[in-house]
Amino acid sequence: MRYLPGQAQQLPGNRTSAAHYRAQHFLFEVQDGVATLTLNRPERKNPLTFDSYAELRDLFRALAYADDVHAVVLAGADGNFCSGGDVHDIIGPLTQLDMPGLLAFTRMTGDLVKAIRACPQPIVASIDGVCAGAGAMLALASDIRFGTARSKTAFLFTRVGLAGCDMGACALLPRVIGQGRTAELLYTGRSMSGEEGERWGFFNRLCEPESVLAEARIFATQLAQGPTFAHGMTKKMLQQEWNMGVDEAIEAEAQAQAICMATNDFHRAYHAFVAKQKPQFEGD
Amino acid sequence: MRYLPGQAQQLPGNRTSAAHYRAQHFLFEVQDGVATLTLNRPERKNPLTFDSYAELRDLFRALAYADDVHAVVLAGADGNFCSGGDVHDIIGPLTQLDMPGLLAFTRMTGDLVKAIRACPQPIVASIDGVCAGAGAMLALASDIRFGTARSKTAFLFTRVGLAGCDMGACALLPRVIGQGRTAELLYTGRSMSGEEGERWGFFNRLCEPESVLAEARIFATQLAQGPTFAHGMTKKMLQQEWNMGVDEAIEAEAQAQAICMATNDFHRAYHAFVAKQKPQFEGD
Amino acid sequence: MRYLPGQAQQLPGNRTSAAHYRAQHFLFEVQDGVATLTLNRPERKNPLTFDSYAELRDLFRALAYADDVHAVVLAGADGNFCSGGDVHDIIGPLTQLDMPGLLAFTRMTGDLVKAIRACPQPIVASIDGVCAGAGAMLALASDIRFGTARSKTAFLFTRVGLAGCDMGACALLPRVIGQGRTAELLYTGRSMSGEEGERWGFFNRLCEPESVLAEARIFATQLAQGPTFAHGMTKKMLQQEWNMGVDEAIEAEAQAQAICMATNDFHRAYHAFVAKQKPQFEGD
Repeated sequence: MRYLPGQAQQLPGNRTSAAHYRAQHFLFEVQDGVATLTLNRPERKNPLTFDSYAELRDLFRALAYADDVHAVVLAGADGNFCSGGDVHDIIGPLTQLDMPGLLAFTRMTGDLVKAIRACPQPIVASIDGVCAGAGAMLALASDIRFGTARSKTAFLFTRVGLAGCDMGACALLPRVIGQGRTAELLYTGRSMSGEEGERWGFFNRLCEPESVLAEARIFATQLAQGPTFAHGMTKKMLQQEWNMGVDEAIEAEAQAQAICMATNDFHRAYHAFVAKQKPQFEGD
Repeated sequence: MRYLPGQAQQLPGNRTSAAHYRAQHFLFEVQDGVATLTLNRPERKNPLTFDSYAELRDLFRALAYADDVHAVVLAGADGNFCSGGDVHDIIGPLTQLDMPGLLAFTRMTGDLVKAIRACPQPIVASIDGVCAGAGAMLALASDIRFGTARSKTAFLFTRVGLAGCDMGACALLPRVIGQGRTAELLYTGRSMSGEEGERWGFFNRLCEPESVLAEARIFATQLAQGPTFAHGMTKKMLQQEWNMGVDEAIEAEAQAQAICMATNDFHRAYHAFVAKQKPQFEGD
Repeated sequence: MRYLPGQAQQLPGNRTSAAHYRAQHFLFEVQDGVATLTLNRPERKNPLTFDSYAELRDLFRALAYADDVHAVVLAGADGNFCSGGDVHDIIGPLTQLDMPGLLAFTRMTGDLVKAIRACPQPIVASIDGVCAGAGAMLALASDIRFGTARSKTAFLFTRVGLAGCDMGACALLPRVIGQGRTAELLYTGRSMSGEEGERWGFFNRLCEPESVLAEARIFATQLAQGPTFAHGMTKKMLQQEWNMGVDEAIEAEAQAQAICMATNDFHRAYHAFVAKQKPQFEGD
């Protein structure tokens, strides 16, 4: 086992292994190139703490260099996704901080979202039950979201006297469900039901509670068997073109796709097609 | 009573009162911190005129400093929202103007939308019947929209030989209902039905005609009882992050939310939670 | 007949005629100011080739100057829209190219999308059957999309080992159907059904296969009878404001609409209204 955070920085340009990473504040296992990361404090609906925030941030940063993880499933234990920042462990201490301390905290939580968006692996969130506050932001920062009818997703920052602009919510949520629906969720903090989430484009699929994790894993495994270098480029460009003009975005894609046309996976696909076979992608 | 427009500028940094503002070209009343602004020329379905445009612009600019208005309900009298710029009072005179005069008019209407987006109060539009042209833009510039099944929302600029780009329509509408649906509405000027509006994310809720105004007021009153300083920050950041990159938006939110964590409302919420009480927010 | 591409550049500021353009690699006819462009290699579901890409690009560039085409219908022959870049004619040769050659290709396909977005005519895509790869991008680059229940729209670049960022997909698709649904389509390459496309805002309307082309032509003809100069401004501003801030977009629209208020079509509409007649627009 190699401990990822830190090491990656020491080997610039090099790739590292994440498959044997031993997580301290959540569950982490890798199978068939898919890392399943499970928030695991079910008696409190899997809240985040200062420690789990920091470890998540470091892990996603390290995944940018990991050679053996090609997709990530993000889940919560025992029927809930995540209840967000713990009131006792996080909100209480925050009320004691001075301004530099407050900014250090909001930057740290923002850095987690930045790291999730910056790693090349597609993130598939498996969302059941409570998905609230910073937990809703983890779901929103993911690429693909599978939910359940009983899931309750709430950007409830306003309920603790705060603004809806937390960890990127005012930037990300309008592009997923539109500005109008975003405004209602952020001003009121009310729960979005599973049915609303599917209809509005937040959830890619609604599943039964007993199968949502399995379906997320199957989906992630299929992605991990695809052209993973190209998937990483797709994710990068969805981020990169966020605020480009259309013509600039088209030129950016011309360059990005030309890079992908120089990969072996592109050649593998062509030769498989000519041979009437299914391509075997290797991510290079 | 103090006449707001103008005065606010004379007291930089200071807050002013809007509760006793006496409107000249529409109805305006404040109750429980909620201003209800009613376009009131029902015999012509509440059109806008040069005078009402200018007064609306000045009032929304003044609301940026008002201490006693925490949410706004925007409505029209007698079963219609607003029929837009009056053909006789506005379009006729426009055909006589030179280019500087035309630009002065389009900038004035645009300044109204800028003022609506710049004031910190969430705007809840109560929309029944006709909602057309500049009226549709007032609805679109609002934060929350409650409609009725019989409402007809039409960006009908093309019907008078103009382009769909009026008062920000080509920027705002795509982010609410998507580029594809926007293109159809702007190229054709056709009405969007209430059902379409709800399905597409334009309306947050469809109500019965007899209750839409009451529901908008209840919603606005609940917002006005919330952490209103934080609501103003939510509105500001939804605007501010419009064309930022994701990472820049996340940093902007880290700063904005750190400011909110230094407010009393954040502390009130925490202490109420610990005491198992409902927080009483005061907007500071 | 004048051959458009090339000539337009020789007459700067001048307008040209496209009605008698004789296409080499697709069908092209103009009626009532509406050009119908039909991809026509039905035995292979209307794929694109190097030649048809280049001719499409040149034609759309020339349409920017054409005086006698006011709307475009984009269609495919015999029950399919377009199967995208031909595997034998395009993908095979691409595997032989060096990096400058690859970039020249991806820039050429991107230039086609840029030309479609830059010409002033609204493009109405009539989409039945297969709509895949670069074909899906032609549909996405159009302004209005009419589909059928049996249509299958697939951004299937990942299936040939490439990224989803092709010809502007990562910029355009999220603004039409949202970031969440876009991610699924681009990572998996799966088909979007006609029903999904309508529900998600990709299709403006679902039609019967036997009538989709006729409905697209009727729609385009109505646009061509409208204030076409203003339509061109609407299209330009939808592009121009893509990554502007809200306030800058509002100023840009103030200028653009002031220009339209100086057109004869605006005056025609006003005088027709006063005379209780239907306005006859002439596009100037």
